[in-house]
Amino acid sequence: MSVSLLVVGSVALDSVETPFGSTADAIGGAAVFFSYAASFLSPVQLVGVVGKDFPADELQELETRGVDLQGVVQMPGESFRWKGKYSYDLQNRETLETRLGVFADFKPKIPAPFRDARYVFLANIDPELQLSVLDQVKKPAFVACDTMNYWIHGKRDVLLQLLRSVDCIMVNDAEARELSGEWNVYRAGRWILERGPTRVVVKQGVYGAVLLERERVFYVPAYPLEEVYDPTGAGDAFAGGFMGHLARTNDATAPNIRRAMVYGATMGSFAVERFSVNRFREIGPAEVTVRARAFSELVHFDFESSPAVPAG
Amino acid sequence: MSVSLLVVGSVALDSVETPFGSTADAIGGAAVFFSYAASFLSPVQLVGVVGKDFPADELQELETRGVDLQGVVQMPGESFRWKGKYSYDLQNRETLETRLGVFADFKPKIPAPFRDARYVFLANIDPELQLSVLDQVKKPAFVACDTMNYWIHGKRDVLLQLLRSVDCIMVNDAEARELSGEWNVYRAGRWILERGPTRVVVKQGVYGAVLLERERVFYVPAYPLEEVYDPTGAGDAFAGGFMGHLARTNDATAPNIRRAMVYGATMGSFAVERFSVNRFREIGPAEVTVRARAFSELVHFDFESSPAVPAG
Repeated sequence: MSVSLLVVGSVALDSVETPFGSTADAIGGAAVFFSYAASFLSPVQLVGVVGKDFPADELQELETRGVDLQGVVQMPGESFRWKGKYSYDLQNRETLETRLGVFADFKPKIPAPFRDARYVFLANIDPELQLSVLDQVKKPAFVACDTMNYWIHGKRDVLLQLLRSVDCIMVNDAEARELSGEWNVYRAGRWILERGPTRVVVKQGVYGAVLLERERVFYVPAYPLEEVYDPTGAGDAFAGGFMGHLARTNDATAPNIRRAMVYGATMGSFAVERFSVNRFREIGPAEVTVRARAFSELVHFDFESSPAVPAG
Repeated sequence: MSVSLLVVGSVALDSVETPFGSTADAIGGAAVFFSYAASFLSPVQLVGVVGKDFPADELQELETRGVDLQGVVQMPGESFRWKGKYSYDLQNRETLETRLGVFADFKPKIPAPFRDARYVFLANIDPELQLSVLDQVKKPAFVACDTMNYWIHGKRDVLLQLLRSVDCIMVNDAEARELSGEWNVYRAGRWILERGPTRVVVKQGVYGAVLLERERVFYVPAYPLEEVYDPTGAGDAFAGGFMGHLARTNDATAPNIRRAMVYGATMGSFAVERFSVNRFREIGPAEVTVRARAFSELVHFDFESSPAVPAG
């Protein structure tokens, strides 16, 4: 029995150049990557804004996948566009152009039927808007948010206020460091945990992701891929897998959050195998289950048949 | 029942500067870090060279720990000295000075009692010397080697010849890339596996280490540490834990090699907690067992109570 899963964030058209090819005005944005990934696990309620130029067939496909678009407003003007270029090793990217278009005036308005959402993901937008979403939802069971360096520096106080109201923040290494002022990821995590959330997820790209709780650490590797085409959206697909699993099981207990990490890593790995959301268009639920379960083998060892270290 | 474990490599005096302090002429070198780590698990046979200036009490302490030094030759001249400085985040280091001293003429001669060694680690030295060690040992069960970019570029053919004679190579990300010409670590691993070894271990520092076999991948995270003082020797301590576990169990089967990865990560994590080998002087077998077993919890999740992804 899955329950309601709400995501608020960008719906965009991306033009991406990697060493393996390029796309122009392909569907993207944090809320889109999130929705595609989560939709394998749970129905999704999406709140965002698009311009008049946004391809109608793309919106239709999202609906077909169980994404409720009554929170997506179409405004006069241009859709949010991002243009970026990755380095030869995909480890760095340069933003060539950002055209906010209608996204510049985005004020998320949560439709009445979405206000009962049990699971809420606040994708990377202005923390004031993230807070305004929390004012509109009733009593979510689990709220996670993302952010970026721009807000960490520009709206630090609001972001710290937001931290007091979320259960989990999902950031990458660099963001965790900038936010906390600590280079060491475990110290950074502790700093953040002392400011509100009970969980911090630090996304580490090809190295996987780490879940930090007050007393425990959980590590999930990245799924081993010999071919990575486009890292865009991996973090949001991770969030989609993570939150989608929580919503479909309606269970935010510690052991289930570990499983959510595995679904996050699973969906993140699919995201990078093609441009845009194209890999999600190729796979079905069986591929998701198979890959998620493969993580067990990837980290499995047992000490049952192994002796303790002998006393000297 | 542990069996013989042989290591051949550098025995040095390190002067290291980190943001947290510095050391001068502290005991170091690949074979020393390896021996300290392995000695918790197995007796060690060490082959190396020191100058007349090498502190006698340091050699004595190694012996006390079960390291057989009959393969350590003392030569007229100065011991190998390395001086380095780490960046603020410990992620980069600069070599300030290297004085090879007696190490420049090191020609490993394996004492007769060491030639039956079942487990052999060829630490980072000239691959011609690594090959000469293999000519001197009889029938080892498992041979692992390390190397560095200097040899990858300068003695590539010899190194490729060595690869045909080892079971396992342990390198870091950068070395795996330089050796194979592949940026992707799984492609790099496959390239190396096609050239001889049945296992490649890629050490990834704070991100852990990955074991690559033809059909399988195993990932062990780095032990979460809030304080890291000095990364020097972490890779060699990893090798010491890994090979020490294989030797003490006399078992180089796949499941035991995974456990060896965990002991490797355990010993690597102790190495970085203090300068030089000092952390190994503080801990006992109980600390090693406790930390190794903590890795289970660090990656544990189960899917038993979790449903498969429903068909759409």
